[in-house]
Amino acid sequence: MAKVGIIMGSTSDLPVMQEAIDILKGFDIEIEVDIVSAHRTPEKLFDYGKNAHKRGINVVIAGAGGAAHLPGMVASLSPLPVIGVPVKSRNSIDGWDSVLSILQMPGGVPVATVALDGAKNAGILAAQIIGSSDKCVLDKILVYKEGLKQKVIEGAKKVSE
Amino acid sequence: MAKVGIIMGSTSDLPVMQEAIDILKGFDIEIEVDIVSAHRTPEKLFDYGKNAHKRGINVVIAGAGGAAHLPGMVASLSPLPVIGVPVKSRNSIDGWDSVLSILQMPGGVPVATVALDGAKNAGILAAQIIGSSDKCVLDKILVYKEGLKQKVIEGAKKVSE
Amino acid sequence: MAKVGIIMGSTSDLPVMQEAIDILKGFDIEIEVDIVSAHRTPEKLFDYGKNAHKRGINVVIAGAGGAAHLPGMVASLSPLPVIGVPVKSRNSIDGWDSVLSILQMPGGVPVATVALDGAKNAGILAAQIIGSSDKCVLDKILVYKEGLKQKVIEGAKKVSE
Amino acid sequence: MAKVGIIMGSTSDLPVMQEAIDILKGFDIEIEVDIVSAHRTPEKLFDYGKNAHKRGINVVIAGAGGAAHLPGMVASLSPLPVIGVPVKSRNSIDGWDSVLSILQMPGGVPVATVALDGAKNAGILAAQIIGSSDKCVLDKILVYKEGLKQKVIEGAKKVSE
Amino acid sequence: MAKVGIIMGSTSDLPVMQEAIDILKGFDIEIEVDIVSAHRTPEKLFDYGKNAHKRGINVVIAGAGGAAHLPGMVASLSPLPVIGVPVKSRNSIDGWDSVLSILQMPGGVPVATVALDGAKNAGILAAQIIGSSDKCVLDKILVYKEGLKQKVIEGAKKVSE
Amino acid sequence: MAKVGIIMGSTSDLPVMQEAIDILKGFDIEIEVDIVSAHRTPEKLFDYGKNAHKRGINVVIAGAGGAAHLPGMVASLSPLPVIGVPVKSRNSIDGWDSVLSILQMPGGVPVATVALDGAKNAGILAAQIIGSSDKCVLDKILVYKEGLKQKVIEGAKKVSE
Amino acid sequence: MAKVGIIMGSTSDLPVMQEAIDILKGFDIEIEVDIVSAHRTPEKLFDYGKNAHKRGINVVIAGAGGAAHLPGMVASLSPLPVIGVPVKSRNSIDGWDSVLSILQMPGGVPVATVALDGAKNAGILAAQIIGSSDKCVLDKILVYKEGLKQKVIEGAKKVSE
Amino acid sequence: MAKVGIIMGSTSDLPVMQEAIDILKGFDIEIEVDIVSAHRTPEKLFDYGKNAHKRGINVVIAGAGGAAHLPGMVASLSPLPVIGVPVKSRNSIDGWDSVLSILQMPGGVPVATVALDGAKNAGILAAQIIGSSDKCVLDKILVYKEGLKQKVIEGAKKVSE
Repeated sequence: MAKVGIIMGSTSDLPVMQEAIDILKGFDIEIEVDIVSAHRTPEKLFDYGKNAHKRGINVVIAGAGGAAHLPGMVASLSPLPVIGVPVKSRNSIDGWDSVLSILQMPGGVPVATVALDGAKNAGILAAQIIGSSDKCVLDKILVYKEGLKQKVIEGAKKVSE
Repeated sequence: MAKVGIIMGSTSDLPVMQEAIDILKGFDIEIEVDIVSAHRTPEKLFDYGKNAHKRGINVVIAGAGGAAHLPGMVASLSPLPVIGVPVKSRNSIDGWDSVLSILQMPGGVPVATVALDGAKNAGILAAQIIGSSDKCVLDKILVYKEGLKQKVIEGAKKVSE
Repeated sequence: MAKVGIIMGSTSDLPVMQEAIDILKGFDIEIEVDIVSAHRTPEKLFDYGKNAHKRGINVVIAGAGGAAHLPGMVASLSPLPVIGVPVKSRNSIDGWDSVLSILQMPGGVPVATVALDGAKNAGILAAQIIGSSDKCVLDKILVYKEGLKQKVIEGAKKVSE
Repeated sequence: MAKVGIIMGSTSDLPVMQEAIDILKGFDIEIEVDIVSAHRTPEKLFDYGKNAHKRGINVVIAGAGGAAHLPGMVASLSPLPVIGVPVKSRNSIDGWDSVLSILQMPGGVPVATVALDGAKNAGILAAQIIGSSDKCVLDKILVYKEGLKQKVIEGAKKVSE
Repeated sequence: MAKVGIIMGSTSDLPVMQEAIDILKGFDIEIEVDIVSAHRTPEKLFDYGKNAHKRGINVVIAGAGGAAHLPGMVASLSPLPVIGVPVKSRNSIDGWDSVLSILQMPGGVPVATVALDGAKNAGILAAQIIGSSDKCVLDKILVYKEGLKQKVIEGAKKVSE
Repeated sequence: MAKVGIIMGSTSDLPVMQEAIDILKGFDIEIEVDIVSAHRTPEKLFDYGKNAHKRGINVVIAGAGGAAHLPGMVASLSPLPVIGVPVKSRNSIDGWDSVLSILQMPGGVPVATVALDGAKNAGILAAQIIGSSDKCVLDKILVYKEGLKQKVIEGAKKVSE
Repeated sequence: MAKVGIIMGSTSDLPVMQEAIDILKGFDIEIEVDIVSAHRTPEKLFDYGKNAHKRGINVVIAGAGGAAHLPGMVASLSPLPVIGVPVKSRNSIDGWDSVLSILQMPGGVPVATVALDGAKNAGILAAQIIGSSDKCVLDKILVYKEGLKQKVIEGAKKVSE
Repeated sequence: MAKVGIIMGSTSDLPVMQEAIDILKGFDIEIEVDIVSAHRTPEKLFDYGKNAHKRGINVVIAGAGGAAHLPGMVASLSPLPVIGVPVKSRNSIDGWDSVLSILQMPGGVPVATVALDGAKNAGILAAQIIGSSDKCVLDKILVYKEGLKQKVIEGAKKVSE
């Protein structure tokens, strides 16, 4: 069964990244969570990137802030699709550094970037990637999207009342 | 076999998006190319988004510029993973509008955004998504990455000479 | 009699959009308020955009934040003038994403964009649009502008005292 | 019959603003073109803003660049809907000054802002404003939108061939 | 004796602009304070700009926020040097709109722009302008600058202790 | 008689700064032009700033680009009003560095900043500063402004023909 | 033994700059702390820059905010490596002015710029500069980096539990 | 004797980085030039970062563009001072991505960032770092700075003639 590896540069990113954990648990997709810092544990980063696909991981979600190198470096080392979550960390310049240092990867090494602090969407995107070859997960996505719609419709009812 | 749908908002986006076409052809992945404008052919957009996964498409790549709504609207309508390519079109404000209107999707509806004019990376990311469940494509990615490395090493040789 | 349709992407946009509701009520212009999410209720969006002018609506005000696609997609589907209100929502990057994804529409499909969180001005603009062919509403605008002036003059008196 | 006043801050804005002129001529809507500079002919600005609605003008389109005060000052003086076109003039900082000094009007005095150099859309928006109370013009908008769609469909045919 | 006219777009700008008032009082320079809104009292603006130099005013300080047109419009109407204070008002986009719509004036009509919320510096600059032809005021500036230096030197002493 | 000191950081700034020279010559105001680099000739900067007012200079115009320290450092050293011209030099990031490092001076030390590459306006502002205490120069400014108006009116005639 | 001079534009920068002091004390590197304002104590700046290397200082760390000229002016006057710390001071525009006016130095006069409010990194960089010729300090850097790694590994343990 | 390692992410960065090579040759400082791509040759990056200080390198200069991870990753792996050169590469968004992804390093791992495309200053900074413990190189810096001054003084002569 497919597995998603969720990593982040620091425990301080956990409150943001928790949303990716929660949404994937809601889809009953197996996850593995770890702290991997590109700048403070480069050997662990190297090991993680080189071996994730060998350990049965299918998609990686990597969150980091500021000069955020974690998603891009994992993408450099791994053949797996890597989803990058730009985190608006304490010292970030309004999130611009986080976004640009994840998004603007050079030709050859993509990172699938989601919105600033968009860990929830990273989780959904990981599920969609699994769902693209797994009918059962695809159906869960369809159900999830139906749920989004119902919530808006209920909200609309309240407003029109 | 997996198939990638490549769409763009206008024929003027084709020179940029051609790189996605070329790289996927290089990976022997089946593609389907179309022009779908969120703002000028909303019915076609609707039909495309609702039915892509029923027609056997596994991943969608959508490129657009300015107030770029195509990737996000397909993501709204389809359960498939959607890769967004911000195009620096003629009237774009240095590409910022293209990037932000694709990247900053609300919770629930992700778009896997790549770099400005990063259609090549969109193609590679689509291949990686397919490769995450298809050992044969994963191996092609590994070979591709090895090729990137060799080119740099050759360049390094020339510089040190 | 003219009618203004006010829609927004989420109930969380209501505190901002309330100013459009209030100002139009003050002008005795009929309004209709609804929640329509481009990304979560695309079918409702489609229906709204296609039929607003048939249901007697003359002007649409649409508010949304982040990768804000609601105003542009209604403008795509409807022949009516659409006023877009960029909302500085919780996950917006200081409002820049909201502004650019509403303002930078491609040639052929305009959105009349107002200032960030400028719902009050959206309401006034809707009244001005109606007033451009309705002498009675035009006169109300003239009275309203006279009121603005008086408030400044009173403020000036206090300062000079 | 409805009439659109098109003004701009300088003859150097004419190449951009010509698109508004052309599209309105295409809709058979009467126009009146003039140069009015907020900074060099303030008396003319004053006269224009105070009297446009008395001279039978229904909508004003105002284009300007840099610290662009023309649209906002006409909106200050006139009860009519004013459409602002931010022009990327020679000394503009990538258009940001033009956009922000037109868009970010204070509460009470809206300017309907279109995209940078978006004079064509300003013309269409003016037609939509007239069409909101004139069935004949509304029908022309519907025909125009149908034309946009056909062009995309033809482009799509060429790409798929 | 020289006189400085201090105007602002709204009473809400007073807390920022008070620093200009205080510093000029400290230099014993005569001031005149008023509220003049470019967008809500255009006639008052017109009158102010046309007549300030005839009423014995030598320098104008004008503060405004958002799409800030007050400093530029006074500069359009008056031959006097106009100092513009960009105010970071409640609806401003981090102050960028205030800065750009005051700073980026077209050739022929300068505004002497100071830092965001820099009303204190506007006051000092007004004094320097008067001092450029009035030896007595120039000497006060020299004394003021000496005071700035002493404060830093005292702070340095505390830090080194 | 009043004299304006025009300095710039490098001879490469001369094409931009020439406009200040020309406009002041047109007003028959005495000028003195020099190259003073804050970063390469700090002693000359020091000498210039300390003595300009003693040598009979009444206003300083300083142009520089990138991390532009010349205007602010002269303002630090001199009691005279200093006009800063942000130059969009070759290595500037679209002019933002030039603008912000001149405009955002700390409380106590103002620089009268004009638009990016706005040397012409710096010259006019210098004339206005002199004119604020010199009736003869003030009259020249009034004549100059009348000339600006006539040019627009002639342009308007051509457009309406 | 090597010595680091730490200066800042104002005592209000001390809370940020304290991190540089603390980290260098932790490395047992001698420091000297002072307040030097480019804009309020230019003579002291001049003296500091001209003589720091003569007084036995090997590296200078200079912190300042807004139009931050202190680091660049010391770099102008001194042959020593100067590390610049952009401080997000109270009136800074989100830190952009601080960053750009320190980073974008002209060819010939570098400033080694660190992240916004990155005084801690300035201290580490100063230690690395000393360590580049002092084996003992280099070893301390290696130990420090090992400590960073251990903290991440401990955090990772807690997360995986 | 001290040695500077100069690396860059791609041969396309060589035209920019050549200025660092040239200036260091002018100072008679030994250099070693190589191509190391963080994203395409991560093993080489790892080896380079881990061993540079063991191979006798004292300072590293690393240039890269876009999501530029090379300088930060070398800084992660090496105890040496690392100078980062943000390169305005072909796909960079006006250089902002290059600057922010090099400058905004997290606490613990500094990169000494110079101006966009500022390779010349990177070379001078490397020389200054060596000069901070090598009197002979320090004297060369003093001579170099004297040369900068003379060139400005000559330029000033031509302008005043």
